Amino acid sequence: MPLDETHDPSHASWVDSANATDADFPIQNLPFGVFRPGPGEAWRTGVAIGDRILDLARARASGGLDAAADCEGDSLNGFMSRGPAAWSALRLALSRGLRRGSGCETPWRDALVPAAQAEVRLPARIGDYTDFYASIHHATTVGRFMRPDNPLMPNYKWMPIAYHGRASTVVASGHAFPRPCGQIKGADFPEPAFGPSRRLDYELELGFFVGPGNAMGSRIAIGDAERHIFGMCLVNDWSARDIQGWEYQPLGPFLGKSFATSVSPWVVTLDALAPFRTGWTRPAGDPAPLAYLDDPANRAAGAIDISIEAWLDTQAMRQAGVAAARLTRSSFRHSYWTIAQMIVHHTANGCALNPGDLLGTGTQSGPTAAEAGSLLELSEAGRRDIALPMGQVRRFLEDGDQVILRAYCERDGARRIGFGECVGKVLPAN
Amino acid sequence: MPLDETHDPSHASWVDSANATDADFPIQNLPFGVFRPGPGEAWRTGVAIGDRILDLARARASGGLDAAADCEGDSLNGFMSRGPAAWSALRLALSRGLRRGSGCETPWRDALVPAAQAEVRLPARIGDYTDFYASIHHATTVGRFMRPDNPLMPNYKWMPIAYHGRASTVVASGHAFPRPCGQIKGADFPEPAFGPSRRLDYELELGFFVGPGNAMGSRIAIGDAERHIFGMCLVNDWSARDIQGWEYQPLGPFLGKSFATSVSPWVVTLDALAPFRTGWTRPAGDPAPLAYLDDPANRAAGAIDISIEAWLDTQAMRQAGVAAARLTRSSFRHSYWTIAQMIVHHTANGCALNPGDLLGTGTQSGPTAAEAGSLLELSEAGRRDIALPMGQVRRFLEDGDQVILRAYCERDGARRIGFGECVGKVLPAN
Repeated sequence: MPLDETHDPSHASWVDSANATDADFPIQNLPFGVFRPGPGEAWRTGVAIGDRILDLARARASGGLDAAADCEGDSLNGFMSRGPAAWSALRLALSRGLRRGSGCETPWRDALVPAAQAEVRLPARIGDYTDFYASIHHATTVGRFMRPDNPLMPNYKWMPIAYHGRASTVVASGHAFPRPCGQIKGADFPEPAFGPSRRLDYELELGFFVGPGNAMGSRIAIGDAERHIFGMCLVNDWSARDIQGWEYQPLGPFLGKSFATSVSPWVVTLDALAPFRTGWTRPAGDPAPLAYLDDPANRAAGAIDISIEAWLDTQAMRQAGVAAARLTRSSFRHSYWTIAQMIVHHTANGCALNPGDLLGTGTQSGPTAAEAGSLLELSEAGRRDIALPMGQVRRFLEDGDQVILRAYCERDGARRIGFGECVGKVLPAN
Repeated sequence: MPLDETHDPSHASWVDSANATDADFPIQNLPFGVFRPGPGEAWRTGVAIGDRILDLARARASGGLDAAADCEGDSLNGFMSRGPAAWSALRLALSRGLRRGSGCETPWRDALVPAAQAEVRLPARIGDYTDFYASIHHATTVGRFMRPDNPLMPNYKWMPIAYHGRASTVVASGHAFPRPCGQIKGADFPEPAFGPSRRLDYELELGFFVGPGNAMGSRIAIGDAERHIFGMCLVNDWSARDIQGWEYQPLGPFLGKSFATSVSPWVVTLDALAPFRTGWTRPAGDPAPLAYLDDPANRAAGAIDISIEAWLDTQAMRQAGVAAARLTRSSFRHSYWTIAQMIVHHTANGCALNPGDLLGTGTQSGPTAAEAGSLLELSEAGRRDIALPMGQVRRFLEDGDQVILRAYCERDGARRIGFGECVGKVLPAN
């Protein structure tokens, strides 16, 4: 994915808030989402720019967006289905129209909505949701809790492991959900009991939305893989470790995960991420990927250096006006598998992927203990307190806790871009 | 679910083919589906009666179906969402209108389509597909192949185990699909290789469609469970045992299952199944279900005696005009968990179920080896030949093989009803 004028770090926007050096949504980003200006209004597609959202249908109606075919409506599924040429053409038109000195400033002013007043929802109707397990550091740490002698399964370095998730409970950032109940069996108890989870956790992940996709019975080749990826978002795959621990053998995670999955509302396109691509290497001695998962271009620039963070604020902290505390910071560049490899593997058996399907990367923990993407890892399976402001501690989430995921890309010579936030709050069990 | 005049075995229909004693779709059945009379015509809802399909919109337009609100359109999702009162009201109106001597005979004649000329598709837009593992005989046999000393996991008798499946590859009966490829690792090989599955299998299952469902964060109580089940169908959860065996640890089945799942097109309602309900018992010493999964009404009539069969015909058999061979016959009454328990457990954590979601029961193997619902079991994990006509044998499926699932209910004093067929064929790998 070559760099072009849309990545030029010297460009500024006539939307002034987009030009702040710490803005998540400068003119070099231009992420897509679905919003409405206020309660009761119609849902519509938009592009985040600074602290504003550009209403795509209104901007198009006022001229200057001829490239915007299929970008309108109440979801991005149609636009996602169109493929990279359409995506890049609209990005270029938006970049030119939002640039300082553009003739679109006057006609597009009325198409801007303050983001603070708008509501967001899922960017697409998600037909199916799949979650991978692409961080070897996460897999090794979690595996060690359950199988100290054999933490990493023999298949791990050969294929991107994944499970099918539940699409009906994927929600946009801002959703609060009750603590899940389920069967829990303590190690010292002969029988399970039904009740609220006591080991509720977050998982710091990224996700990506499927573009055109593939027909059932066909496969996506590694060289074509990124043509089928519209863009990326943050994902919190909330997990009830105690429910999961008792249920997961032999068919994998089910109710321990399916009560809620939160995603950030703004989809950062692969175009926007182009300046932050990086190569992947494998530790000496690790097997080379099988041919269907290997490709020189993917080796050279298949990884993406996206900084990812998880923050927590408790009810007491919010009441006292104390800022959220950062629990983790890591990077997606540590992922053992790339998003291209994940989407290729997913279709290797002929499984159909449809526009708007969501694929999660799995918890992205980095190589050091401080870079762990879940409380399970940070608390060493619940054995160690994690210190918070005001003398509070956590091993797992308590009622009223709010988890905030953030991601951004920074590199010398490129404009910083961000993903915004993925926020979710735990309510008491019903 | 009480019996009423719609179950009266003495009723006959003015559609003569519905009155044959071996008809799957007599007037006591009245299953719902989606069809079109021919290529290029619009998809529409209908009811199977004998060898005909009643077009619901056309029957309604000609009078006599005032109860049919929301039953029209190109899927049953809307009707499924309405709940048992609406379902039973329409069933009663259809039973009266299709009965011999009914005044509807003349106006409804034009709304009948020969089933042999019609195309069928999925009865609903399936938002999410979940597959359970509710046969203890299947779980024990399969578990023994992998863990001879410990075949059944300790959680099995406490909860209905399940995994999230892939909705995008659920297809209607009649679909042919290429043999899936994937990573396969033989026990004697140090590394996996990519290629076509050599251990392709069927799974003989039933499925059920969600009715009104539940909002995210809420639960369905066991006493209300069947109000949320519209009806049942056959499911073939095709499985590539070699792909599954290498990939499934630790997150469960993924590409070994997601290449295709076939379902029969006619949904047999719980109303139609009412005469075939039976109680469930657990072997002495097995734990009683936890309170949220237990209910006197479910104990008394939570199981359903549905005979289930799997048949195979090979390309050579079809060319020689030799009839399909029956591989298995068993009954759903052997299921360890009831459909009410499955749907209740699925929502125990607040997971939202939506109208039209599909829940599979898992492979329904009976207590004896001959009642096994998959080739994996019948061939003892590929160690034993299964004899077919014309001197052919199988351990797993070969290209050109066609699997036909059938189900029906019979009982003294009740009219026999059937599910029709769920057919699928294996094509060579791409």
